[in-house]
Amino acid sequence: MAAKNLQDVLNAAGNTVEMLRNSQIGAYVYPVVPTEFSNWRDEQRAWRETAVLFDQSHHMVDLFVNGKDAFKLLSNLTINSFANFKVGTAKQMVPCSHSGHVIGDGILFRMAEDEFVFVGRNPTANWIQFHAETGGYDVEVIYDNRSPSQPMGKPVVRKHYRFQIQGPNAKDVIEKLNGGPVPEIKFFNFDYITIAGKKVHALRHGMAGAPGLEIWGPYEDYQLIRNTILEAGKEFGIVAVGSRTYATNTLESGWIPSPLPAVYSDEREKAYREWLPADSYEAMGSIGGSFVSDNIEDYYVTPYALGYGPFIKFDHDFIGREALEAMDKGAQRKKVTLAWNGEDMANLFASYFTGEENGKFFDLPLANYASSNYDAIMANGHHVGFSMFTGYSANERTALSLATVDPDIEIGNEVTVVWGEPNGGTNKTTVEKHKQVEIRAIVSPTPYSAVAREAYADSWRTKG
Amino acid sequence: MAAKNLQDVLNAAGNTVEMLRNSQIGAYVYPVVPTEFSNWRDEQRAWRETAVLFDQSHHMVDLFVNGKDAFKLLSNLTINSFANFKVGTAKQMVPCSHSGHVIGDGILFRMAEDEFVFVGRNPTANWIQFHAETGGYDVEVIYDNRSPSQPMGKPVVRKHYRFQIQGPNAKDVIEKLNGGPVPEIKFFNFDYITIAGKKVHALRHGMAGAPGLEIWGPYEDYQLIRNTILEAGKEFGIVAVGSRTYATNTLESGWIPSPLPAVYSDEREKAYREWLPADSYEAMGSIGGSFVSDNIEDYYVTPYALGYGPFIKFDHDFIGREALEAMDKGAQRKKVTLAWNGEDMANLFASYFTGEENGKFFDLPLANYASSNYDAIMANGHHVGFSMFTGYSANERTALSLATVDPDIEIGNEVTVVWGEPNGGTNKTTVEKHKQVEIRAIVSPTPYSAVAREAYADSWRTKG
Repeated sequence: MAAKNLQDVLNAAGNTVEMLRNSQIGAYVYPVVPTEFSNWRDEQRAWRETAVLFDQSHHMVDLFVNGKDAFKLLSNLTINSFANFKVGTAKQMVPCSHSGHVIGDGILFRMAEDEFVFVGRNPTANWIQFHAETGGYDVEVIYDNRSPSQPMGKPVVRKHYRFQIQGPNAKDVIEKLNGGPVPEIKFFNFDYITIAGKKVHALRHGMAGAPGLEIWGPYEDYQLIRNTILEAGKEFGIVAVGSRTYATNTLESGWIPSPLPAVYSDEREKAYREWLPADSYEAMGSIGGSFVSDNIEDYYVTPYALGYGPFIKFDHDFIGREALEAMDKGAQRKKVTLAWNGEDMANLFASYFTGEENGKFFDLPLANYASSNYDAIMANGHHVGFSMFTGYSANERTALSLATVDPDIEIGNEVTVVWGEPNGGTNKTTVEKHKQVEIRAIVSPTPYSAVAREAYADSWRTKG
Repeated sequence: MAAKNLQDVLNAAGNTVEMLRNSQIGAYVYPVVPTEFSNWRDEQRAWRETAVLFDQSHHMVDLFVNGKDAFKLLSNLTINSFANFKVGTAKQMVPCSHSGHVIGDGILFRMAEDEFVFVGRNPTANWIQFHAETGGYDVEVIYDNRSPSQPMGKPVVRKHYRFQIQGPNAKDVIEKLNGGPVPEIKFFNFDYITIAGKKVHALRHGMAGAPGLEIWGPYEDYQLIRNTILEAGKEFGIVAVGSRTYATNTLESGWIPSPLPAVYSDEREKAYREWLPADSYEAMGSIGGSFVSDNIEDYYVTPYALGYGPFIKFDHDFIGREALEAMDKGAQRKKVTLAWNGEDMANLFASYFTGEENGKFFDLPLANYASSNYDAIMANGHHVGFSMFTGYSANERTALSLATVDPDIEIGNEVTVVWGEPNGGTNKTTVEKHKQVEIRAIVSPTPYSAVAREAYADSWRTKG
């Protein structure tokens, strides 16, 4: 009998880790947006030096949650306090499993008293939808899925376009678009600005210290708004960022987009697994990287490990609260950036051209090859954490990854990342035959840009 | 006054070379098809070891030329003899300028007595259309342009789908699809086979020695035919090839797709330049690479230089005939493959991670960054040719380029390719600031695969 839900799929597979490590889903792509508008080196440079247009219209789910129980539902599903959650503001929502491990995260906008929009990857959207449908809440949910990874020339339509204007010149671009000073919007508050005669929503956002806006509106205005921004921004050096570059901005700004949702094992999430379709993200997604354990729970991460400790507020009931209350905060892993050693990187690339065996291909500028990435980090012969999002910054001329490491690993320490999978690699379609290599890395703060350059670049180069 | 045609554009620009070297058109992409279906290393491996599906539905112009003068028109525009051009066969058509330099090339299918289809890049299609419209021929021309480079989610429709099934297992796949043995089609002849109950055109083609087919039919069957081939081919290891990999097959098979069309200077092509729109390929396209001359004619290449000498037949009148008859054949350049030195490549990649200045980014597996690529090849301090199409073969674990070199350069010689543009690079959007580097290369035959591995790989590695 064909599997109908995630639980069927897991039962048939036997070992969950092996199943996910050999998923046939392929690369987790940033769809529809062309790969490069100019070239990825200059597209990266622009968010540091001038301004960029990020096109976020296609890669995330928009989940609309409306109704008199919407507030209660969402509050029950996140570590964040809603005590002060005003209309016209947004929060980075972090739902957890009953065991206190992260399901995912994303941005939750409060549009009106009883109207919310969640924007993020499928696992969190699925989790919210499940509880909305099964938890006895008086809510209506509309699931506007991310665009197809391979449109193959077929038309793609979303409910909203969504852009960010970021970079040191973003303010100039926005003021010109708006035809005058922009309302003073506080961080993660939203308001309206005017573009091309249209009133568009604008969330105050920022990247690597520079102020910026995330704007959205009806998808039918997609091209109009995009063209207007690029035209107005020309004199300020605005650059459209392509799909190849986009996700690498997080290497400098420090958000880890892709933890494995902690839903595969606990009896308390069994009803959820029976609800999730056999073709859901959770059933089809992939784990990649050098870290291998037989136990899927070894891949789960706590909110602390991803840097969300400060969001946890025990002023409300939420799934995972008891488990989080019982956790030893001091023993939890913490988020860092790893700056990968340049000579070791050069040796990795040399292996594609010389010698007998090649290391796993490290794609520039984004090197991930799975939905969730778990490369083992070693220090003094011990496994001390996961490297979870990997690529290259032309601004830093360095391979970087976002990682979570044991509490005793300090900024400035040298660790080793094991790059590539054991035994020649798994059967994932993104994995060619390769040998594992070890790459030294310096533990650095998140966000990496700004601080790291000033405080650590020198010692790094000296150590090189 | 806004430029209306290519001649206006050239007049306004002053220097043609400088204009084309600083074009803002961006990368010449292979549109619509997803970048990778599995991963480019394994996609390359499949055409050597199992079977591949090339999706050629989007990247070329289909020019339909019908009417009682179609034969005469086309014969007047190519070096090839039409003396034996039967219905049901195809030719690699190579039109030249009055000066005997290549405009472009492509495949010309004779569908019926007075019906032809040309499939190739814009410059040749434009050239044919111009003469059809202005030469007093009784023909009708339909120009089905290549798909947009950046569809941005809008629907894409062509007149035909076009696929190739290639690789050592191609025959097995094709026989299974056809439900029995395939008619014995001779090379560059076409017939019909049956796929999914549809009668589809099939041209006998081949790549690197293995037999294969190019098939085409109405675009509404695109997905049906594609899915049927992939499903049938599964047991034979067929692999869909993505846009990132596709063009690199020519590094092993030896076709140079992208000479600069020789239309910019000669008085005899002035009427053509006045006919070509200001937004045509010829006006917008780019020249990339280390070779720089003030004179655009230094970028023109003869049919001999691209390996088309054997196609030249003086049994008919054609544009360029007089010039070609007057040429000293022995003094012409010839086509070769260059196998780039692995250590020098490793040093290039090291420059992205260490040291003060980076070399021009070498994208794997396709490294071209312009519509037409002209990297200078040096030997003994002299400029001896152009490296014109550059990338990497995971099958050979070597960077390769297709090149045209002086007649005294011999297979096995070591030459140097200058990689990157002078003075930090031009203003092309695909060019980041970089320094030039020199990369040694061994002159090797075309096609590279097969021969080169057996005869030259050893000496290459010894020399390394």
